[in-house]
Amino acid sequence: MTDTEQYRQAILAIRRRKPLIHCITNYVAMQFNADALLALGASPLMSFCKDEMEDIISIAKASVINIGCLDRFQIEGMKAAVEALGRRGRKWVLDPVGAGASQLRTQTALTLIQQGRPAVIRANASEIMALAGTRIDSRGVDSTNDVYQARTSAMSLARESGAVVSVSGETDLITDGVREEFIEGGSPVMCEVTGMGCTATALTGAFLTVCDSPFEAAAYAMRLMAECGGKAAAESSGSGSFRVRFLDEIYNTFRTEAEK
Amino acid sequence: MTDTEQYRQAILAIRRRKPLIHCITNYVAMQFNADALLALGASPLMSFCKDEMEDIISIAKASVINIGCLDRFQIEGMKAAVEALGRRGRKWVLDPVGAGASQLRTQTALTLIQQGRPAVIRANASEIMALAGTRIDSRGVDSTNDVYQARTSAMSLARESGAVVSVSGETDLITDGVREEFIEGGSPVMCEVTGMGCTATALTGAFLTVCDSPFEAAAYAMRLMAECGGKAAAESSGSGSFRVRFLDEIYNTFRTEAEK
Amino acid sequence: MTDTEQYRQAILAIRRRKPLIHCITNYVAMQFNADALLALGASPLMSFCKDEMEDIISIAKASVINIGCLDRFQIEGMKAAVEALGRRGRKWVLDPVGAGASQLRTQTALTLIQQGRPAVIRANASEIMALAGTRIDSRGVDSTNDVYQARTSAMSLARESGAVVSVSGETDLITDGVREEFIEGGSPVMCEVTGMGCTATALTGAFLTVCDSPFEAAAYAMRLMAECGGKAAAESSGSGSFRVRFLDEIYNTFRTEAEK
Repeated sequence: MTDTEQYRQAILAIRRRKPLIHCITNYVAMQFNADALLALGASPLMSFCKDEMEDIISIAKASVINIGCLDRFQIEGMKAAVEALGRRGRKWVLDPVGAGASQLRTQTALTLIQQGRPAVIRANASEIMALAGTRIDSRGVDSTNDVYQARTSAMSLARESGAVVSVSGETDLITDGVREEFIEGGSPVMCEVTGMGCTATALTGAFLTVCDSPFEAAAYAMRLMAECGGKAAAESSGSGSFRVRFLDEIYNTFRTEAEK
Repeated sequence: MTDTEQYRQAILAIRRRKPLIHCITNYVAMQFNADALLALGASPLMSFCKDEMEDIISIAKASVINIGCLDRFQIEGMKAAVEALGRRGRKWVLDPVGAGASQLRTQTALTLIQQGRPAVIRANASEIMALAGTRIDSRGVDSTNDVYQARTSAMSLARESGAVVSVSGETDLITDGVREEFIEGGSPVMCEVTGMGCTATALTGAFLTVCDSPFEAAAYAMRLMAECGGKAAAESSGSGSFRVRFLDEIYNTFRTEAEK
Repeated sequence: MTDTEQYRQAILAIRRRKPLIHCITNYVAMQFNADALLALGASPLMSFCKDEMEDIISIAKASVINIGCLDRFQIEGMKAAVEALGRRGRKWVLDPVGAGASQLRTQTALTLIQQGRPAVIRANASEIMALAGTRIDSRGVDSTNDVYQARTSAMSLARESGAVVSVSGETDLITDGVREEFIEGGSPVMCEVTGMGCTATALTGAFLTVCDSPFEAAAYAMRLMAECGGKAAAESSGSGSFRVRFLDEIYNTFRTEAEK
């Protein structure tokens, strides 16, 4: 289990430092991810043009790369980003959205992983299995597998890539290839809201800037998702109001009344 | 009038099968369309890169093509999609957003219709009239005409293209060139919320996967829009809260208490 | 202080005329900006493809150019737009999002300003300082400076460019290089919601179509932001519900009960 006091301190550190998080993310989840990062206390910057990648990465504290809406410009930008991140020794998190649904997605994710090791790979069970070379029956960007089915794949992907692997599902799994942590919580309605996985990835990026260990960063992000998701679900009457409450819950986490 | 029991069965079938709906849609409505599809029970996948079109269409159950934010990459992707859809005999729905506002939009829509027959063309009155070659006074993406003015254009477009034409407005009209159905309901606030038309198109795509007839699919989608729109308007205090309630209403349609 | 009756008349004129506002804006704020324009009563059209720029600008009443998510296609489209706007003598507003964070952003903004004078440049303090050549410590798209630090830069940028400069912050500043107006109001939560600045820019574009003076247009937009922001903050319980209420507040401004 994550230590609650350390978890709280990590969130307060993000709020105090307001780290700039550079995101190359898909068009569907862009606003939601930026909102979630702001609610947590980070400062998002969405940029995918390769012509500014060097400048942006020089001022950002961490990067988030999400392949949810690939086009050739975005792929160019991602490659330039991973190169610059490597040169500067910056941490980044990869979200291989839809790996397994097309060769382009699987290959782009694998190429990025080989080109420069991400600190964390955050995905759903089917995507992790696709990256690990396990045969899956892809149904797009929603998982058709559960976390337990992806357990071996997650372990082997972590060992081969050197990245922490963070798998979301009814139960979440974090592994570095040796250690495993399972996180409970959340709500089924989270599967009916676009970009929840992408948001977990974005939040992981923010935690990377305040945690020494990527394992902790991944676990804190999933814990925040699970806690805020569970609370928001209890107070909402459908997927529309869930999204609104979920952002409110992130915003209010460990905030004093005076800060609200 | 649509048969209520068949309409209900169609929605329950979507929720049971969770069909993968491939969308090439505009950046403005992407999140809302994905959310609406998830709330209904379908699984959206946003993809417009031609390099993955074949793979994505091979696993999708239907496609939605919306020209609301054209660029050259998107146009390439749309053409590749229509080709692949034709080869595989898959159903798709076209939303010619802003046809009449620029030559590029009108021509792109007409080219796609000629290249591969859509099952449904879903648009507002001005767009349908522009596609049918009727002179209009375009004011962009919002209609300056009502459905009754577009009636002849809709009939002739349906006959020429072989597609069912679904025209949204205060009253909606569905026609296959012979049969006509008018759907009442909804609320004026729906005109003040971005992407409502695009959402009608996306939902039509989901219904195409469970209805034998595109006419029924188009009618069920407009009925769902009108019913959820009317209920949401009654419970909201402006266009912001309307969007949230509208998604809740779709989410809750024919869901049992246990499923909520 | 802006005159309340003139301010009210400007909003009622927008609602009556429903001006088409052409926007080239970033992907993060697109939906929110379109929603805010619709809530105010304008008709947004998002278009950045250079192949339709001439057609779109011929029917639009004003344009909004926002460099928040640059790629080469968008830059091409922006240049084509500024050229067409100049030829037709149309007013436009520039939002130099992230100027100072990368050479590409700073240079693109300066090139557009030189190529064709915007009626208004609307930005945060750090961005205005970057454009005026003042050294800043950029932290991305969020300001690290306050409006008072940007005062001299704003004055000189206004004088050099011939544009009204509208600077948002805890207090907002509007200047044409001679006259200055400070606007109070709003709420700190507005900094935790993505795209609030972009929305101020979009609303400025709508006011440009009904105000003779760009100074008035800029001031009315910031007043609407401050008033609706203040009211929405008082009624919301976090950044998620703030966004929803904020749109409701714009929607309800000077609307009679019958119109709601």
